[in-house]
Amino acid sequence: MGKARTSRRRGKVRLSRKAAAMLRLARVSRIATAGASGTPHLVPVCHALVGGKLYLGSGKRGRKVRNVLANPRLTLTVDEYSEDWAGLRGVMVQGRARVIERGPSFRRIRRAIYRKYVQYPTDAALSESDSVIIELTPTHVFTWGLD
Amino acid sequence: MGKARTSRRRGKVRLSRKAAAMLRLARVSRIATAGASGTPHLVPVCHALVGGKLYLGSGKRGRKVRNVLANPRLTLTVDEYSEDWAGLRGVMVQGRARVIERGPSFRRIRRAIYRKYVQYPTDAALSESDSVIIELTPTHVFTWGLD
Repeated sequence: MGKARTSRRRGKVRLSRKAAAMLRLARVSRIATAGASGTPHLVPVCHALVGGKLYLGSGKRGRKVRNVLANPRLTLTVDEYSEDWAGLRGVMVQGRARVIERGPSFRRIRRAIYRKYVQYPTDAALSESDSVIIELTPTHVFTWGLD
Repeated sequence: MGKARTSRRRGKVRLSRKAAAMLRLARVSRIATAGASGTPHLVPVCHALVGGKLYLGSGKRGRKVRNVLANPRLTLTVDEYSEDWAGLRGVMVQGRARVIERGPSFRRIRRAIYRKYVQYPTDAALSESDSVIIELTPTHVFTWGLD
């Protein structure tokens, strides 16, 4: 289902213009974490792209956070399905995750998330007491259908 | 973003009627595998639900297959995004994967996949020489928004 293009480098990678645009505009993405057990956990999330890194909010004790603390490898994928498979498009970002618990970084990223999703403050407010922000630094990027 | 309901039992689990309906009808799902390295691989797939198990085709040497051979834990999630977050719905199925390389099971499942996706035989034909079918037996099922 489509050919993939790969961008791999040691350390942080730079997103291509098209991959960054798709990640910035997508209203939903899916993330996978594996934890210590190696059982993948895969759920939809509402993310924001800030300075080449991806961010999402989470309850402090959620499975995503527990998995990331046990194994920081996190993958976020944005894709568009089309019944005409020539139109399939997507970006998979693999990288290292870090949990931001509070402080100026928490509040700065929260503002970016709230700007993208007007429903966020009322429907799933992120507070420094019971929420965290997960930061994903891309190390490998795969795209399909973007050329 | 939504409360989850959990169905956990030892061994294979039975899908609820609503979870099965969502999995059967969804045109696209996402799967995550973790491999030996613990780095999640997360891609969209076109799946079929047959007899309470989930199936998808893959190139024989694809990353999905290599990961499953190293670590059979596989997770498949179907979800629907809605800007009204009260309308978010989804099913996450965690389970054990097995690779079907050829033979009567391969051909029977291929027929089910081809029936669901009319474009499959022409756009991504599954042959016993270079494709495999991955079978997912559910062990844990989480749903949100289905009640």
